[in-house]
Amino acid sequence: MTIRIGILGYGNLGRGVECAIRQNEDMELVAVFSRRDPAKVTTLTGVKAVSLDDLAAYKDKIDVMILCGGSATDLPAQTPAYVADFNVVDSFDTHAKIPAHFAAVDEAAKKAGHCAVISAGWDPGMFSLARLYSSAILPEGKDYTFWGRGVSQGHSDAIRRIEGVLDARQYTVPVEEAVAQVRSGSQPALTTREKHTRECYVVAAEGADLARIENEIKTMPNYFADYDTTVHFLSMEELKRDHAGLPHGGSVIRTGVTGLDKEHSHVIEYSIKLDSNPEFTAGALVASARGVYRLAKEGKSGCFTMFDLPPAYLSSMSPEELRKKLL
Amino acid sequence: MTIRIGILGYGNLGRGVECAIRQNEDMELVAVFSRRDPAKVTTLTGVKAVSLDDLAAYKDKIDVMILCGGSATDLPAQTPAYVADFNVVDSFDTHAKIPAHFAAVDEAAKKAGHCAVISAGWDPGMFSLARLYSSAILPEGKDYTFWGRGVSQGHSDAIRRIEGVLDARQYTVPVEEAVAQVRSGSQPALTTREKHTRECYVVAAEGADLARIENEIKTMPNYFADYDTTVHFLSMEELKRDHAGLPHGGSVIRTGVTGLDKEHSHVIEYSIKLDSNPEFTAGALVASARGVYRLAKEGKSGCFTMFDLPPAYLSSMSPEELRKKLL
Repeated sequence: MTIRIGILGYGNLGRGVECAIRQNEDMELVAVFSRRDPAKVTTLTGVKAVSLDDLAAYKDKIDVMILCGGSATDLPAQTPAYVADFNVVDSFDTHAKIPAHFAAVDEAAKKAGHCAVISAGWDPGMFSLARLYSSAILPEGKDYTFWGRGVSQGHSDAIRRIEGVLDARQYTVPVEEAVAQVRSGSQPALTTREKHTRECYVVAAEGADLARIENEIKTMPNYFADYDTTVHFLSMEELKRDHAGLPHGGSVIRTGVTGLDKEHSHVIEYSIKLDSNPEFTAGALVASARGVYRLAKEGKSGCFTMFDLPPAYLSSMSPEELRKKLL
Repeated sequence: MTIRIGILGYGNLGRGVECAIRQNEDMELVAVFSRRDPAKVTTLTGVKAVSLDDLAAYKDKIDVMILCGGSATDLPAQTPAYVADFNVVDSFDTHAKIPAHFAAVDEAAKKAGHCAVISAGWDPGMFSLARLYSSAILPEGKDYTFWGRGVSQGHSDAIRRIEGVLDARQYTVPVEEAVAQVRSGSQPALTTREKHTRECYVVAAEGADLARIENEIKTMPNYFADYDTTVHFLSMEELKRDHAGLPHGGSVIRTGVTGLDKEHSHVIEYSIKLDSNPEFTAGALVASARGVYRLAKEGKSGCFTMFDLPPAYLSSMSPEELRKKLL
């Protein structure tokens, strides 16, 4: 049984999903849907591009639509809208707005009799699962999440909005001493500044006031003011040569105590190191698409997250094979 | 709604479960069931001990029975037997025999209309989940599991069976160079010997032939012959003083590739470091007991594993709380 997949939105994440589908033999990519003129969209693998205007014709040709838009403006509108016609998966990652997004998608999904999995990826996603499992096993303990070393798109964008900046790349870097302290089980209280530093690589326009740009970055509220931030100016050529990739990574660490007098300490760490953030996220989306397909086959409807998906639903292996090979 | 728990089998694992229940406010420990004369069983927390002969009287007083016997002889008989009267959880850990154990428990559970979760713990258990999730997200890749540094009960027992050995403690130790190679993403082919070493601490009887004992250990098939093994002789006092704990740990690492030309490499690592192996395993059993309770409440029956339990079922938090706090 082949799962027929559609991709809606064709940026880095959409391309990552396109590549990931080829690594999953139980799946087939039907088409890429884009706002752009399909004649002008060249897909990586040659799969056809289709205009969003023609989406309705694909209602019965796609089992799961993977929504690859952004969390700021695309997904809050798209996920509730498209779940009317399709089972969907998204990677909505604005943590504070997840409950509202869930409620909107759940209502639309139940009305349509479809299934949605929202907030799939690694954070939210695999990191959330690590937090859930670890806290269920060690109820008395403390969670820490470290991100990086990796490129933050949001912070890079924030720098690009500064006058005189042509382009920029921002790396979020965990503070090694803080990670080591956490791993020791000492459950330190860490400030924002103590956990991460921020490294900025900035291409400035000719004649721009570098001191002003650096100051505007370092004092930018929410994004940089609470961090030790370093700013490096470089040429466009250097940026393109040395900072073209989108690596990322991080760790979720929980330390907790057990025993009659809480005399035993434990450390659980889930960590990832990624050459390509969008391609790894795509992998989680594709596995979740398999899960949403199975939920829909069971006759379920509504909004779900990776918290609700039985792990076995994400795998292409049968339950028997999983128990034999991976348990 | 309080989940009423019973513990069947009162060794290290049973005591770990007893302590863990106190850390889970939605649970209550009803009794510890043992083959021993209950008058002679003193529980850590003062919960009552009950003879196995009186088990029938507890049929309606216990929601989930946590079976804390051993995998060699206890659980293959106990889990199918007790699921006739209770929802059960066990930590059956003989990997090669899981499919047969699953089949036996599934048949008995379905007949009785009860639920069982087998093979909960960390390996099988959390390590299995790490293998499943990682392979679902990175289908083209390779898994590695390293155990330790930690005490292997099975290997310690094997040494104790040698003539002239009074007591022994065996540590399984991952080879740091191998772990580093795997983390690099190079997907090395590693032999058994290259992955782990074995350290043995042995108390010999007075006048015993130490050279013979050391040789018998190092050449023991399956247990030691395929490993670089070191043997240290020490006094009973030293063993009790320096090797009383049951620490363990390990890592599951998957490295895999993504991208149009598989040009991007990724590393996922799940690792644990435990002061007390039985108490951590107990934590996983107790969380799984919550899961089995919820499956039973849904009217399900049969045998399940952690692969089948939606992660949210393991947590005492509501789905809303989980999405808000941990997603």
